[in-house]
Amino acid sequence: MRVVDLIRRKRDSAELTPEEIQQLIAAYTRGDVPDYQMSAWLMAVVVRGMTRTEIAALTEAMLRSGRVLDLSYLAGRKVDKHSTGGVGDKTSLILAPIAAAGGLKVPMISGRGLGHTGGTLDKLESIPGFNVNLTLTDFQAVLQTCGCGLIGQTAEIAPADKKIYALRDVTGTVESPALICASIMSKKLAEGIDALVLDVKIGSGAFMKKTEDAVNLAELLVETGKRMGKKVSALLTDMNQPLGRTAGNAMEVAESIEVLAGGGPADLRELCLELAAWMFYLGERVKTLDEGKKLSADLIASGHAREKFREIVGLQGGDVGVVDDPGRLPHARHALDVTSAANGYVASVECEHLGTACVVLGGGRERKEDKIDPAVGLEFHKRIGDTVERGEPLCTLHYNSEARLAEARRLVETAYRVDPQKPRTIPPLIHRMIGAES
Amino acid sequence: MRVVDLIRRKRDSAELTPEEIQQLIAAYTRGDVPDYQMSAWLMAVVVRGMTRTEIAALTEAMLRSGRVLDLSYLAGRKVDKHSTGGVGDKTSLILAPIAAAGGLKVPMISGRGLGHTGGTLDKLESIPGFNVNLTLTDFQAVLQTCGCGLIGQTAEIAPADKKIYALRDVTGTVESPALICASIMSKKLAEGIDALVLDVKIGSGAFMKKTEDAVNLAELLVETGKRMGKKVSALLTDMNQPLGRTAGNAMEVAESIEVLAGGGPADLRELCLELAAWMFYLGERVKTLDEGKKLSADLIASGHAREKFREIVGLQGGDVGVVDDPGRLPHARHALDVTSAANGYVASVECEHLGTACVVLGGGRERKEDKIDPAVGLEFHKRIGDTVERGEPLCTLHYNSEARLAEARRLVETAYRVDPQKPRTIPPLIHRMIGAES
Repeated sequence: MRVVDLIRRKRDSAELTPEEIQQLIAAYTRGDVPDYQMSAWLMAVVVRGMTRTEIAALTEAMLRSGRVLDLSYLAGRKVDKHSTGGVGDKTSLILAPIAAAGGLKVPMISGRGLGHTGGTLDKLESIPGFNVNLTLTDFQAVLQTCGCGLIGQTAEIAPADKKIYALRDVTGTVESPALICASIMSKKLAEGIDALVLDVKIGSGAFMKKTEDAVNLAELLVETGKRMGKKVSALLTDMNQPLGRTAGNAMEVAESIEVLAGGGPADLRELCLELAAWMFYLGERVKTLDEGKKLSADLIASGHAREKFREIVGLQGGDVGVVDDPGRLPHARHALDVTSAANGYVASVECEHLGTACVVLGGGRERKEDKIDPAVGLEFHKRIGDTVERGEPLCTLHYNSEARLAEARRLVETAYRVDPQKPRTIPPLIHRMIGAES
Repeated sequence: MRVVDLIRRKRDSAELTPEEIQQLIAAYTRGDVPDYQMSAWLMAVVVRGMTRTEIAALTEAMLRSGRVLDLSYLAGRKVDKHSTGGVGDKTSLILAPIAAAGGLKVPMISGRGLGHTGGTLDKLESIPGFNVNLTLTDFQAVLQTCGCGLIGQTAEIAPADKKIYALRDVTGTVESPALICASIMSKKLAEGIDALVLDVKIGSGAFMKKTEDAVNLAELLVETGKRMGKKVSALLTDMNQPLGRTAGNAMEVAESIEVLAGGGPADLRELCLELAAWMFYLGERVKTLDEGKKLSADLIASGHAREKFREIVGLQGGDVGVVDDPGRLPHARHALDVTSAANGYVASVECEHLGTACVVLGGGRERKEDKIDPAVGLEFHKRIGDTVERGEPLCTLHYNSEARLAEARRLVETAYRVDPQKPRTIPPLIHRMIGAES
């Protein structure tokens, strides 16, 4: 294999063989292919695209670059959920305990906040003591004890993805369905799962703003998973406005505990029941989605889901006291309301701006080395279609420092559009199903 | 400037501003932009292309990355010739002395063999003692003494090009008219010339196999030169068969001396007279091309051109004895004829294969670190349209080692097509003129 020939052929829109892709990724992971060749190849992939066969080969090559967990020692189906990322999307914190309480094994390897979106690991770390950096051995022990664990990508899991992801970030090669698909699926399949539910976000707060792009990615993800012998379905869900009532790490943990306790905002609860139902369905715990939804609701109502969450927090070193008293979570010292300038209806939300405002307050990172303030965040009072009066709060900013408050405030102020007429359509919570076999 | 934004915008087919291009190239030359970002950007340029304004900006940025010679201390017009490379193309060795003998100043900064093509520097180095690595100060002294000098690219000349060229070679980003144009023109304009004649090769032995691509490149080169205030014309000349009778470093020097002595093969002599005429015309030494051609022929007939060559060889440390006795040049110990398998006419030649055969014999490099054998090469006995009898030699291989003789022989054997009928068309020596103002 001459790397320059593989680069040239991809540049000229040729299809590479699975063997060629396997060799390229293996050589890059070993350090035998320099970054400057890989970045040229990645750019060729971004512009020329990849066939489904190539994407499957790339996914497999990245998966095989590291360790694939063997969870056969665990009874029960291993099922995970992955979201493409949004604002206020805290479903992982709720789904993992529900699914584990219902008998599934949930080996969840999650990520950190990326761009304007939050990350499961950052949220969990707002629980005092919670350790997301378990070794794979400790992770497997936690899984055996309580059926569920939440950690970050270790050096052993898809190291090719880790290396390629860092390179893509600085070489303008992020925006490729093929590369996004291989990155997601190689990590998720390394978890040793049987089934995967994908939550592909669409709308102003998602990475994919256009339905067409999201559908394309969802189809790719589902097909790639199926080629690898997994049960995979994707829900295209709405990100034209934040999910639930908060964005910000500790605030989202508190909100998740509310849902696990049987409360919480309707949209968040509804989406969690839907996704949990899919997990139970693909995990063959139930025969229909309705049955899965009912099981999920029962697990919340009975307190079993919340109990499972307490168990996970304890096993991963966190302060279990927060489960009964979320007041123990860090909270911001100051609050500022952003109010409506007019009477009317919330017509639309620039949801990405809200996510960025949260980052600006310190709830996310602008540079890799930034430290997160777990306490800060946004509290949303109005959803699209809601009436609002002049002077009524649309959103409250919870902050600790005034340093960039004005910038965050401005982002939030301009994010909401209030119209005199009620909007004709309100985005549905769930847009579409891809790959369903129900 | 965020480099990743420039990469993304070029990836999305945007036009970059001259300032952005200038900053990117300057930062890369300084080492502030890593290779992996530059290679992603180069790939985006290869696939998306560049506007004429961008190409001019890139050329200027690469030119300004180093020193631009100030030859204003020299009387007379400074004129150079550049060829895009071919097999048996030794015109530089003949043109430089003709033009200098005619009163032009020729500050020729040349290259080495690339792929299957030969390079002026490698040819010159087959003259015992000839030094192509003069400092710019010594180069300028030689120019002052005899009006002409032939050296390699120094560290001071277009260092951005040197760095980018090395990167392109290993990242599949060679084949871009924009990048080829900027590379050629930045080096040539750094010579401090007033005018430039471009010899753009087309055909089976050229890098551009298709007329359309060659015309496009020629137009780009001419326009870019004119934007920089230079007089530039391009001749599209034939490379469907080797130029002249030999390919191989010392053999080509000997053939060049033949032409300077008034002999040599008709095609080589004709092309040299044509290109020299253009140099004199653009250098305002003559008013018409016919006048330029006559002047060139006179300079050969009078022995002045050969005398000038002797002067250059002497000033650059070479053995001047070779000018009168080319037998002093290194020559190969063995010869092998490749003969025709049939009676008929030479219908076509895979000219690139002939160039590759010469490299295989040791006359060129397959890896950067390969050492060249100046003595080896090919001697061509037949041109397209010539009659040939079964068993008659088409080409003689001059070699020192049998190591890869079979491979070279096979390349030559399969390069010639002999047909029973005379070919309907014979490629013209000169296909087209671009940018002429005569």
